[in-house]
Amino acid sequence: MTTQELYAEYVSMMQKAADLNGAAALLSWDQETYMPSKGAGFRARQLATLAGQAHEILTSPRLSDVMEALHERKDLQPDEMANVARSYEDYQKHKKLPGAFVESLSMLTSECFTAWMEARKENDYGIFAPSLTRMIAMKREQTKLLGYEAHPYDALLDEYEPGATTAMLDNVFDGIRTDLPPILERIRNAQQVDDAVFLKHYPKEQQWEFSVAILKAMGYDMEAGRQDYSEHPFTISFSPDDVRVTTRVDEDNYASLLWSTIHEGGHALYEQGLLPKNYGLPLGAAASLGIHESQSRLWENCIGRSSTFWQQFFPRLKNTFPQQLAHAGWQDIWKACNKVIPSLIRTEADELTYHFHVLIRYELEKQLIEGSLDASDLKEAWNSAYEHYLGIRPANDRTGILQDIHWSHGSFGYFPTYTLGSFYAAQFYAGAQKAMPELEHEIAAGNFTNLLQWLRNHIHIHGRRYYSDELCEVVTGEKLNVNYFLNYVKQKYARIYDVTF
Amino acid sequence: MTTQELYAEYVSMMQKAADLNGAAALLSWDQETYMPSKGAGFRARQLATLAGQAHEILTSPRLSDVMEALHERKDLQPDEMANVARSYEDYQKHKKLPGAFVESLSMLTSECFTAWMEARKENDYGIFAPSLTRMIAMKREQTKLLGYEAHPYDALLDEYEPGATTAMLDNVFDGIRTDLPPILERIRNAQQVDDAVFLKHYPKEQQWEFSVAILKAMGYDMEAGRQDYSEHPFTISFSPDDVRVTTRVDEDNYASLLWSTIHEGGHALYEQGLLPKNYGLPLGAAASLGIHESQSRLWENCIGRSSTFWQQFFPRLKNTFPQQLAHAGWQDIWKACNKVIPSLIRTEADELTYHFHVLIRYELEKQLIEGSLDASDLKEAWNSAYEHYLGIRPANDRTGILQDIHWSHGSFGYFPTYTLGSFYAAQFYAGAQKAMPELEHEIAAGNFTNLLQWLRNHIHIHGRRYYSDELCEVVTGEKLNVNYFLNYVKQKYARIYDVTF
Repeated sequence: MTTQELYAEYVSMMQKAADLNGAAALLSWDQETYMPSKGAGFRARQLATLAGQAHEILTSPRLSDVMEALHERKDLQPDEMANVARSYEDYQKHKKLPGAFVESLSMLTSECFTAWMEARKENDYGIFAPSLTRMIAMKREQTKLLGYEAHPYDALLDEYEPGATTAMLDNVFDGIRTDLPPILERIRNAQQVDDAVFLKHYPKEQQWEFSVAILKAMGYDMEAGRQDYSEHPFTISFSPDDVRVTTRVDEDNYASLLWSTIHEGGHALYEQGLLPKNYGLPLGAAASLGIHESQSRLWENCIGRSSTFWQQFFPRLKNTFPQQLAHAGWQDIWKACNKVIPSLIRTEADELTYHFHVLIRYELEKQLIEGSLDASDLKEAWNSAYEHYLGIRPANDRTGILQDIHWSHGSFGYFPTYTLGSFYAAQFYAGAQKAMPELEHEIAAGNFTNLLQWLRNHIHIHGRRYYSDELCEVVTGEKLNVNYFLNYVKQKYARIYDVTF
Repeated sequence: MTTQELYAEYVSMMQKAADLNGAAALLSWDQETYMPSKGAGFRARQLATLAGQAHEILTSPRLSDVMEALHERKDLQPDEMANVARSYEDYQKHKKLPGAFVESLSMLTSECFTAWMEARKENDYGIFAPSLTRMIAMKREQTKLLGYEAHPYDALLDEYEPGATTAMLDNVFDGIRTDLPPILERIRNAQQVDDAVFLKHYPKEQQWEFSVAILKAMGYDMEAGRQDYSEHPFTISFSPDDVRVTTRVDEDNYASLLWSTIHEGGHALYEQGLLPKNYGLPLGAAASLGIHESQSRLWENCIGRSSTFWQQFFPRLKNTFPQQLAHAGWQDIWKACNKVIPSLIRTEADELTYHFHVLIRYELEKQLIEGSLDASDLKEAWNSAYEHYLGIRPANDRTGILQDIHWSHGSFGYFPTYTLGSFYAAQFYAGAQKAMPELEHEIAAGNFTNLLQWLRNHIHIHGRRYYSDELCEVVTGEKLNVNYFLNYVKQKYARIYDVTF
């Protein structure tokens, strides 16, 4: 077979798997938005079948043969070579996990998830602990099967953030441990911000209308996506031409919809910016979870929580809610957006204390995977860490150790990507500002065209061409540098809280 | 292998295919309800892949071997034997269509649907004609692949109404050609009914609310289904536990939503009445399109357009629309429901002239498939036929040849099942009345429980156990007899138009 024939066969198989995964994504979307309750049973088996069919293609001996053969060919185009290289890596990793292990893990995940749900309902970590213990044992086993150089946690990280290592993360989290507490301390001693402006009655329909206007202003293509309601906000892609977001609405807290819209909008712009010609191929997929999160955080925090943004959008918001905002100015909204206060729930945390939540999970995960901490001692470790870093202690398990779903899914190594996302966001945004001196003026005019184009050209179109740390260097000229984030928060909070750092 | 092991393997493969088809159905539903416009391209290929994967299972050598083996076993239960027998028939038919043909047809269907949408928007058949020409060529090819005895159209009919033939339909439509015109003539000479009561302003939300109340009254399970908006009303099933209907709303013509709701509700009750234990198996599928249509027509016409129904529902309707119905009585609605007037749009036609619409399509389809009519001449042929049979000529394509979605889906041989459905409906309803002397009293009290149970027990639970003509005999004791329909319309219109036949 010629190289082009081989490559075409590779593409065809990959895209067939993408079709099945895209269909499964629609089934999941529907499950969270419109599906009637009794539909759940058959939906579950339909999803399982689609996953099974996609898995069959991606692990087929034929695809393996085609990739082995392509690996030897020297006459591939650079993009083709990049696709094959990434797919080959994926395949090599897949191969390390025996079918029996994957099946056991899948079974244990279901058991663990059920235990977590039950434990949450009963507000009792004790119900979850035995399953979690087995899960941790299995993840430790997984690190051995996958292999690692310096630290077993590296093997797990690799699934979410290829290229990232424990050594690199230790460095990042050391920064948090040393540099963030004094900043937080200064803020806690300053006059607290009043966020009552968000806590009025904001009718659903107008909230929705304004959130759609923001999505459109950001450059989200409503002809290649839509926004719907769901219990938990999420972004989901069926193809770069159909990327949907969901949000929730709380009529008594406008902040809930506002931030989920902008956050999910940022994720969605990334997915809409992947090139349709790379559909189903590594160059048509997001680089990593950290990079994905960098896009949502950049829009949510660097843009949506900036004074520039609110000088432009406040008058529009006031048009929509003249009564609620009769006595407010743009500064009130801007300050309310940036209120810092230590709290127990990660997903509701402000953008500063947020990273303590991640730090705590990172420290605990490392110890669990190393074997230096046992699941039976985890609750006490969790509660002590919250007391140590944030000065508050969870009053119960539901607002403490049982708050996040991740461990019940076996997702160890996932949490750190949230912090990486924020840090990449700050560094990328600084890069964009440097590259486009007019950027702040454009944003002040509600014009995001050049910013989006810059993100498209420097980040989105590459897909998985680079690992996240390489991509960071390509985009900004240097490796991940925590100082961008530190400078960003210092500048912001100096103005909000009228302090100096 | 034991018979039970073989049968379990057969069920597993059939249900896997059902999962893929159920997923494809959701993709289609979404395409016509919520999908953003740019999503169409990748959606088409995802649908094609799902169709291809399901086809692969259903035509796999393994399934064939399993069915061959089961065919020989004498120790199957009767239901198991019925499933295997029908599947084996299907398999023999399926085998005739190569996978590549099925995938091309699926791709062409998506293209054709998009062209039809565009053509409708632009009111220009010329935009649709090239795709339709390719579709007809492909359907002619399909008749050759499937094979036929007397007429190529038989091969296509068989897909929707197994057992029906062109010869049988010629007979039915000859009846229409000879028996309906004198009835229509008598009505046209009588005093016309006034339907102005429907043509007031009925706000969307209240229309919707009342339509949902009717669905619930009929026995439609809203926890196993939902109603949404779409351009063309339809019913679609992902499993017996998730059967959805769609409808359209015209604020200036309440009839539009009312009839589509009851009609689709009738279809949906059939699908919800199939037994979950037969999911993916012939006994868990509708007997034929004609039988499917008999269920929608029975509810729409025999029930929804009856005086008994409106004596019960008029007061409820008046509660919802007190202003619009201030000066109306139940007779006004009942008569308006049954106004007979030749018109251009099939889906809005009264239940008498309706069958001329089908007759016209049947004649044109036969010619297209024979090759005696070309798609480029179809518009003129359509317009002339309307002039000949109904004395009216479409002023534009949207109200003429572009009104129906079917041909864009490649559904040739489908239209005749609408007429079969009406005729079966009249015969089934006569059977129900005979079996339950109290039925009219129950309906007068808004109680449809026994009617639905009778339909469930006599029709729904059988799935595809019988061909439609056999089922008719099992349910009513005789083969399809056109006189039930003729008697039904004569009785009804004698009261409405104060004439004798």
